[in-house]
Amino acid sequence: MKNVVVIGGGTGTFTVLSALKKYDDLNLSAIVSMADDGGSTGRLRDELGVLPPGDVRQCLVALSESDVLMRDLFNYRFSNGGLEGHNFGNLFISALEKITGNFDAAIEALEKILKIKGKVIPVTLDKVKLFAEFENGEMVVGEGNIDTSKSLLSKRVKRFFLNPKGKINSKAKEAVREADFIIIGPGDLYTSIIPNFLVDDFTKRVRSSKAKKIYLCNLMTKFGHSDNFCVSDFVGEIEKYLGSDCLDFVIYNNKKPSEELIKKYARKKEYFVNYDEKEFENKKFTALGRDLIGKGRHKQSSADKLQRTLVRHDFEMLGKTITSLIK
Amino acid sequence: MKNVVVIGGGTGTFTVLSALKKYDDLNLSAIVSMADDGGSTGRLRDELGVLPPGDVRQCLVALSESDVLMRDLFNYRFSNGGLEGHNFGNLFISALEKITGNFDAAIEALEKILKIKGKVIPVTLDKVKLFAEFENGEMVVGEGNIDTSKSLLSKRVKRFFLNPKGKINSKAKEAVREADFIIIGPGDLYTSIIPNFLVDDFTKRVRSSKAKKIYLCNLMTKFGHSDNFCVSDFVGEIEKYLGSDCLDFVIYNNKKPSEELIKKYARKKEYFVNYDEKEFENKKFTALGRDLIGKGRHKQSSADKLQRTLVRHDFEMLGKTITSLIK
Repeated sequence: MKNVVVIGGGTGTFTVLSALKKYDDLNLSAIVSMADDGGSTGRLRDELGVLPPGDVRQCLVALSESDVLMRDLFNYRFSNGGLEGHNFGNLFISALEKITGNFDAAIEALEKILKIKGKVIPVTLDKVKLFAEFENGEMVVGEGNIDTSKSLLSKRVKRFFLNPKGKINSKAKEAVREADFIIIGPGDLYTSIIPNFLVDDFTKRVRSSKAKKIYLCNLMTKFGHSDNFCVSDFVGEIEKYLGSDCLDFVIYNNKKPSEELIKKYARKKEYFVNYDEKEFENKKFTALGRDLIGKGRHKQSSADKLQRTLVRHDFEMLGKTITSLIK
Repeated sequence: MKNVVVIGGGTGTFTVLSALKKYDDLNLSAIVSMADDGGSTGRLRDELGVLPPGDVRQCLVALSESDVLMRDLFNYRFSNGGLEGHNFGNLFISALEKITGNFDAAIEALEKILKIKGKVIPVTLDKVKLFAEFENGEMVVGEGNIDTSKSLLSKRVKRFFLNPKGKINSKAKEAVREADFIIIGPGDLYTSIIPNFLVDDFTKRVRSSKAKKIYLCNLMTKFGHSDNFCVSDFVGEIEKYLGSDCLDFVIYNNKKPSEELIKKYARKKEYFVNYDEKEFENKKFTALGRDLIGKGRHKQSSADKLQRTLVRHDFEMLGKTITSLIK
């Protein structure tokens, strides 16, 4: 039994967990960013004073072994009236937090209700807010605003930080300590992945963990965030936090999506993440380029409603690639 | 095993079901009014186009054998922001109705999730609205408006009706047919009990059922609805629908609440329901006056949050009185 920790929070983490869930010899934990403050989650934070449920919800659904109705219910989004945009799973988590007075207790209750295989662990239980400070002194406040900002790259971010900094959740500490493998990503760099590393002490603990560290690179760039990024640029951003000697493996996709899909993405100014194997030559980590998208386009099944991307990692291929390292 | 059907919908039905749940030789079904359109339920009906979840929720919680957290969750009411006033259980039922496309399927799913002992059956699956027509030709439209009207008595209601009339749910039909005992009430006469009898064909089926019919009278009057009502006045209202030869038993409380509680109620212009045994002398039914309130005041436990009344039927005493008839 290997302890595998996945660090992230958004749809990318949903994908990795879904890919790994079927391997019975893996003990999965998802460590989840708590910086989310957009959409339904943001309204719940503002109005009810709760911790952000959205990313936790996606991970719970990914790891759930309950029937499809329960998973559909958790993903159900109200589309009318005062409830419009609220996700039922978010309301479920927030109501449980209010009743138990404790986000952690709410997650534990849900682990039973949803028959979770593994653990979902908020990186911190403090109410943190994400800030981006540009080199010109300007500031973007809040994960939601940063996520939709089109000028993160052009304005040059000096630093991201959390306020308050957030105390590491003791369960996250333990999971990192006991981990045999730590998987970082895929997911939005600045709004899903890096907010974890901004929590006090978390980066240090990941660095010093005995676990093999794997970075799983995104398939597509994000407009205003990672335009023109190659795999090595993504890796570089992660290494700003973890250091250049920390990663053991980098997994990236080397199969281009279809022209049709590339065109669809281009309309949103998002592009295939290119790779140049030469860039990895002097690196300590092993780079693994694989066909990770298979046929490259997924039918949306009811249990997959979380998926907002057109092209995404194929569960089967992703699972095989990761588990080939976990022996 | 005796088949016991409870007809009603509101807090009174919650009380009877809670009182009877512990008797393992009773097979309980709650037939529930679908006229509710006030509060959280009304907003959900208007905004999502769903059937009213509120009364069904109360019955599900009463019959639930799941842990207290799940029952607390179902009763949890959001108290801030855009969700203010919405009851989590109502959202649960409505989200399930939206996903399954079917109110009945939603209830069936919840019977599993909440580990229900028995059945909760909407009297109709049609979207009915309750009307009160006064003798002067005026009309009050909607259960919520009728519930809060202070002049139902003074303006003299000519008739209550549903529009559309509502087709009887086949499960309600079956439950009435198979019933050994039918318990009517307690609960608000015109907004919880009688709306059931307005559904097409339902009254006829109750009348012709082989079951023994028991009317369980309210403890207190309701301002503008049943001021100065004695037990026989409540019975008279029920008999307007069922006929004067239909009831086999009338159970009423003969123990006055404390002076302190009576004063509290008097501020809301609500009074103890008096009884006069002589009134029952020429009746076919057997009238049973019992101490049904015990110490007369309940601590609100977390699982009892539904209770809006200060004085209510004592589960133990109510259960004993009813089961003394069910042999």
